[in-house]
Formats: sequence, C-alpha cells, structure tokens
Amino acid sequence: MFEISRLSTKQPDFDAELDKLVSWDAHVGEDLEATVAEILHEVRHRGDRAVLDYTRRFDRSEAQGVAELEVSAARLRQALDNLPAEQRDALQEAADRIRRYAEQQKMADWSYTEEDGTLLGQQVTPLDSVGVYVPGGKAAYPSSVLMNVVPARVAGVERVIMVVPAPGGEPNELVLAAAAIAGVDRVFTVGGAQAVGALAYGTETIPAVDKIVGPGNAFVAEAKRRVFGVVGIDMIAGPSEILVICDGQTDPEWIAQDLFSQAEHDEEAQAILVSPDPMFLDQVQSAMESALPEMERSEIIRTALAKRGALINVRDLHEAAEVANRIAPEHLELSVAEPEKLAGYIRHAGAIFMGRHTPEALGDYCAGPNHVLPTSRTARFASPLGVYDFQKRSSLINCSPEGSARLGRIASVLARGEGLTAHARSAELRVEDQEGEQ
Amino acid sequence: MFEISRLSTKQPDFDAELDKLVSWDAHVGEDLEATVAEILHEVRHRGDRAVLDYTRRFDRSEAQGVAELEVSAARLRQALDNLPAEQRDALQEAADRIRRYAEQQKMADWSYTEEDGTLLGQQVTPLDSVGVYVPGGKAAYPSSVLMNVVPARVAGVERVIMVVPAPGGEPNELVLAAAAIAGVDRVFTVGGAQAVGALAYGTETIPAVDKIVGPGNAFVAEAKRRVFGVVGIDMIAGPSEILVICDGQTDPEWIAQDLFSQAEHDEEAQAILVSPDPMFLDQVQSAMESALPEMERSEIIRTALAKRGALINVRDLHEAAEVANRIAPEHLELSVAEPEKLAGYIRHAGAIFMGRHTPEALGDYCAGPNHVLPTSRTARFASPLGVYDFQKRSSLINCSPEGSARLGRIASVLARGEGLTAHARSAELRVEDQEGEQ
Repeated sequence: MFEISRLSTKQPDFDAELDKLVSWDAHVGEDLEATVAEILHEVRHRGDRAVLDYTRRFDRSEAQGVAELEVSAARLRQALDNLPAEQRDALQEAADRIRRYAEQQKMADWSYTEEDGTLLGQQVTPLDSVGVYVPGGKAAYPSSVLMNVVPARVAGVERVIMVVPAPGGEPNELVLAAAAIAGVDRVFTVGGAQAVGALAYGTETIPAVDKIVGPGNAFVAEAKRRVFGVVGIDMIAGPSEILVICDGQTDPEWIAQDLFSQAEHDEEAQAILVSPDPMFLDQVQSAMESALPEMERSEIIRTALAKRGALINVRDLHEAAEVANRIAPEHLELSVAEPEKLAGYIRHAGAIFMGRHTPEALGDYCAGPNHVLPTSRTARFASPLGVYDFQKRSSLINCSPEGSARLGRIASVLARGEGLTAHARSAELRVEDQEGEQ
Repeated sequence: MFEISRLSTKQPDFDAELDKLVSWDAHVGEDLEATVAEILHEVRHRGDRAVLDYTRRFDRSEAQGVAELEVSAARLRQALDNLPAEQRDALQEAADRIRRYAEQQKMADWSYTEEDGTLLGQQVTPLDSVGVYVPGGKAAYPSSVLMNVVPARVAGVERVIMVVPAPGGEPNELVLAAAAIAGVDRVFTVGGAQAVGALAYGTETIPAVDKIVGPGNAFVAEAKRRVFGVVGIDMIAGPSEILVICDGQTDPEWIAQDLFSQAEHDEEAQAILVSPDPMFLDQVQSAMESALPEMERSEIIRTALAKRGALINVRDLHEAAEVANRIAPEHLELSVAEPEKLAGYIRHAGAIFMGRHTPEALGDYCAGPNHVLPTSRTARFASPLGVYDFQKRSSLINCSPEGSARLGRIASVLARGEGLTAHARSAELRVEDQEGEQ
C-alpha cells in the first residue's frame, strides 16, 4: 500500500486543496540567513583563508591551501578516458544535442534606421565569465554539468569556472568527465555558501565571475540571493515537480513510471496526474502499487507521493489545462492524442513534453532542451536556462543631427516637467545647434 | 570652484583608484533587513489591515481602508486632460516611440523537426500580471511610468497594477497622466516595502502579480530582493551613472551639460569623462565651472561630482573602451568621430549613445530604448528592461516513437549512471515498445 491524495475539480474545496498541495514555502529561517551572511562576509574579507577554513570544517578536507582544491584539466580528461564507452558516448551525444538546441537560442544584434537617419537597436554580447555550482554527494549529476555549461559555451562566455563540493573525498567521476566534455576551464572542489562567496567576490585563487548558475541546498540558495546584484544569478530552485495530463489512453504503467521518475528525486519532489477519466486514475494507482516495491528508490518515492503527490480528476482536457496554468509546473507532460492542440492552451510551464512517447526523462538527459527549469510556480514569470542567460544586450542610439533636434524638443519639455534642467539643457544645446544651421 | 577627481591611466595606482571610484556598496545593514522582513511578514498575514497601518504611519495617510487608496481611471484621465497640450503631446510621442522600439524586442515561438519526426522548440507567452513600482515625492518621474508599463503592454501582459506612494498628499499629476497614456489597469497610492509585499502576496484589495518592476529606495530594493522567487523582479537598481568617451572634438559645453544631466539626479550619481586629450579635459572642466552656478540643481551636481565624478585621461580611444568595459556603465556616450567603430569594442554597457548629437537625455525620455538600465557594473551580466522581461519561454519536446526509442537508450545509460532508475524505466518502456514494433 502507498498513500497519494485524490482530488476532483468537482469538490467544493478544490481550489483551496490545490493551493495547499502545491504551496511551497522557501522561507529559510533567520539562523540560516545569519550563518550565510557571516560566511559571505568572511569570504569577502579573508578570501582564500576563509574558503579553506570552511571547506576543512564542513567538507572534512585536509587541504593546506585553496590551490590544492583545484582539479587539474588532466584529471578531468582522465575521468573521461576511464569511463565505460557506453557512458562516454551517451554523455557526448547528450552534449551534442544540448548544443544543437542551444544554438537556436542565440540572440543577435538588431537595429533600424528612421527617416531622418537616426539609428536605434540593440547589441548583444556574451558574459565574460560564469561560475557553475554543481551539488556534490548523492545528487552529483553529470547531466547538470552539461545543462549549465554548454549554453554558456554556445553564448561565447570566455571563462567557465565550476565548483563542486567533495565532502570527505573525491568528486564523482561522471561529474568530472562531464566537465571535460562540456569544456569547463577550471574546477574547484569547494561548495556551500563559501563557494558562492568565492565566485561572487573572488579570492586570491578563485577568480570572481559575472554570474553564478546551478542548483544547491538551502545555504547555496540563500547565498545566491544575497550576492545577487554583485553578480547575476539564475534562479532560486525549489523541489522538482511534474504534472502529467493524460486522456486515459496511455499505458498506465508508462504514466506510473513517469510519475515515479519525478518522485524519486527527493522527499519533497512533486508528482501529479490529471485526467478526465477516473477509471484511468485507478489504473495508474494500481500500476504504481505493483511497481513501487521493485523501485530502487522506493522509500523516497513513497514519501514524496504521500507528502506532495496527487491524482486529480477533471471534467475535460480544457479544465486540465486550466489546472496546469494554476500550478505553472516545472515539467508538464501532455500524454494525449492531440498534444499540439492542448499545448496552445498552456500559458505557464517550464517544459512541455508532448505525446505519449515523450517522457520527462528524455528531457532530463538528452532531448536537447535544458533541464534547468523554473520550479515552485515560477514558470509564471521565468524561463528555462538558455543561451540567453549568458548573453546581454546594450541599447544602441545614434541620432542624426536632425533627429537629435526633433527628439531634443520632446525631451526638453519632459525634462522640464520633471524639474531636471540639466537634462533639458543637454538636449536643447543640440536643438539650438540645428536651429543655427537653418 | 568645484571639486572633481582627475585620473590618468598612466598613473601607477590607476586600477586601484578606478576601483575605488566606481565601487558602490549596496549593503543595507541588518536593521533595514529586519524592518523589511517584518513589514513583509505583516502584509502577508494581515493583508489590507497591515498595508493601511503602514501607509497611515509612513505616508501620513488618513484613509480608512485600502480601497480609498485606489486612484480611479477617471482620475487618471482627468490628470491627462488637464495637462498643457505641449506636455500631453510630448508624453504621447514618447510613449509611441517607446512602443515602436519595444515591438522589435518581442520574442517569438520557434521549433525545428529532426529527421525521425521529433520536434524541439520553445513557446513564448506573456506574463499574466505585472506590478510597477513608481517612486513618489521628488523623484516621481512620468517617464519611468512609460518605460516600465509600455513594454509590459507590448508583451501582452493582461493586468498592469501600479503603486506609487503619495506621502501626505496627492500623487504627481504628470505621473497619473503617464499612467493613463501607458494604459495602467489599476493604481494604488501605496509605497515602500508594504507595496512590494502587497503586490507579491496579494491582499483583499490589491491583487497579487507575477512580477514586480520599477525602482525604489533601499526599503523597496530590499523588499524586492526578499520576495524574489514568490514573484519575478527586474533588478536591484543602484545610483545612476554616465561614462562619456570623447575624442576632444565635441563642444566642451555640450559635454559639460551631458555630465551634469547625470550628476543632477542625486548626490550618489556618477558622471565620468574619459578622453585621450588632456587639454579637452581642462576645457570641459572650465565649461562646467562656468555653467554650474546657473544650474537649478547646482548643489546636487556639485556634491555628486565631488563624491563620485572624474575626468580621466587615457592614451587613446582603444584604452578608453577598455576603461568602459571595466566600469560597465549604465549609460555610455561615445562622443567621437566614428562611434560605430568604437561601439564594436564595447562589451559591457546598459545603453550606448553614439555620436556628438546623441546626449543621454534623449534616451532618458523619448528616443525609444528603455531608460531602465543595469547600474553599478551589472551591465556585465544584465540587460535594459525590455519586452523580453514580460514574456517567458516554455520548452517544447514532441518525440516521434522512433525518436523516443533512440533518445531513450541514451537517457537510460545516463539515468542509471546517476542512480535514478525510475528515470531509466520511464525511458526504457518507450524503447521496449518500439523494439516490440520491429
């Protein structure tokens, strides 16, 4: 037996129950805030010394200096060379596909010229340097290395620095191999808020970067929130979620595994199935019941489903899309006959997996789109990680003398309306210049 | 007499002096952090009641309910109708030009189909709702209303809510008129951290939004940082800055006013001139000297120039571009003979004003590009506010059965490498299905 919530949009308290189900409080508590503030302060002012102290304390490292925490390029190469061919090929193919998709996202310069010769546009440039945080320990995922590093490389970022904690030992071999394939420039086995601080402020050994991306625990998330502004950050990631909408015509066993694939991440992960067919919900529940004992991570799955999982009965697929829009899920699977049609009703989702043959797992590894996606309803305003996160735009304005005189008259009126007379004078000088010409 | 730093790239301590000059510590102190945390907590849990209490206390309002703080559409219209025709026309023309430029930024869906029929792409959708914070009091700028609201409207955002504090009275008429022109849906005269909290969490009267944009004081900035994740935010704005690069051939009086137009914003604003011609630096200094007493905001300008202004001598324009890239200025004016050529060397800047006839003031009001720009060196990783800030992307993946089988084999290897066997099973079920077909 296993536990999972059953809901129906027909029940009068559905909205409240749904809110309860998907709510996720990211609040971290004042103690953690204070600890992170102190770590960042120490790293900022004591540099290497502080990074080393924390790494020795938290990760049981015996290093005598931060330089010892750097992983050499040769070591990365060695990790790659030592992988079984099957894994090496799979990583390489995944990287190639992620790269091909990312190439499509590259932003380009644009401009237009007005009748009087005034040019307006935007110039696009890559960030100079990026830091990628990779979690260590159990959740050390080589796929995350590819997903964070490849788009940065495609954007043209010159320096990519990776940090990965290696508590009490060596980092994961697959993670090092992925770093070699993705083309990371330097790797340090440092983690936690101290790693974020080092990348934000720079130390004697670890160079400061312009943006920090990659998931981490509550300390890492809080540290990223605090250094935002000094550097860019990607997003504050919450637990992973999947919402599957099924018309009832997909093999229940497939759907059961699709839900498990999310639930197995951790106890807070969320897996929800929505269907207009209540019999199908029963069938999937039975399929989960049968398959659960055989799953290697059955205890995590069981806990996650009991805490945050749900089977939701809706009136029709249109209502299913409405539920999806309210949840704004990280992953949305449309396991239906006409997924293109249904996708047209979806306003908020990190990634949309369309059709019965597109399980989320393909997107997690190798389909091409990024697996770094907005969680905890942030798909209402945020996008998947992409090349565009590693590029930025500069506005271009090049006024012809005539254009400047024309715009200057408008600017002068508005600037004087705001009481900013130097703004007005600066514009008027160009107006007067052109009036002198006539 | 007025004070301004003189620097030269030839001096041995130039790098250190430049760092000192441009450094800006956004750190707000623990007291302010605690105050903002409390205000947000109160607004989240007591809703309207808390918003009303704070507004009565901080803004000396005598309102008896939050509904009284709403400004009606008729009142906005009235403000617009009552404006002198010259101001109304200028606002309207500015809005039109901002809209025309913003239209160019609209992101569109894209996709490609692989040989086996697998479709990959991204779907673009607007945010549902946006909150725009407009500062009150002296710095109530109608141009900011246009710059924040128009791109949201172009993106297709359905609900735009504006908040603007009105300490001890009515909001600025020009601000209300700009709200009418830009097409704001609802306006509340609420400000500070309580306004940010209301927009993030929603109250009985003020609806929650998906993203909050717009500048504010330290309380507003800290509140935005804290609600980031619950809602999207634009950026944490620091003081405004301009860097002018001039070859020495522009009228020194023009450059003096361009620098003043930045310095007059507030005492922390930064105005820097870089030129390879030391004589020109002297001429601009003299021009500033002569013009300063006549400026209406001369005391603010004087303080800003003394605290953070500088005249920097460089070896050549190439070195000037290097200085600009280190500073990553919000506004960069290229007052040179060949601005297109020089712009090609610029990697980091919020907006680039090219040529002698393109003073920053035109961009502040009506050229078209947004005046909400990355400050405090954040142009290293951030972009001007744009339509793209009010749209988001969802990845699209639609695998053909053959594509699913091919990708499933790769995903299975990688998932098992990461110990995520439900991921592997979910992929393998589709592989097996296709193997059964053959």
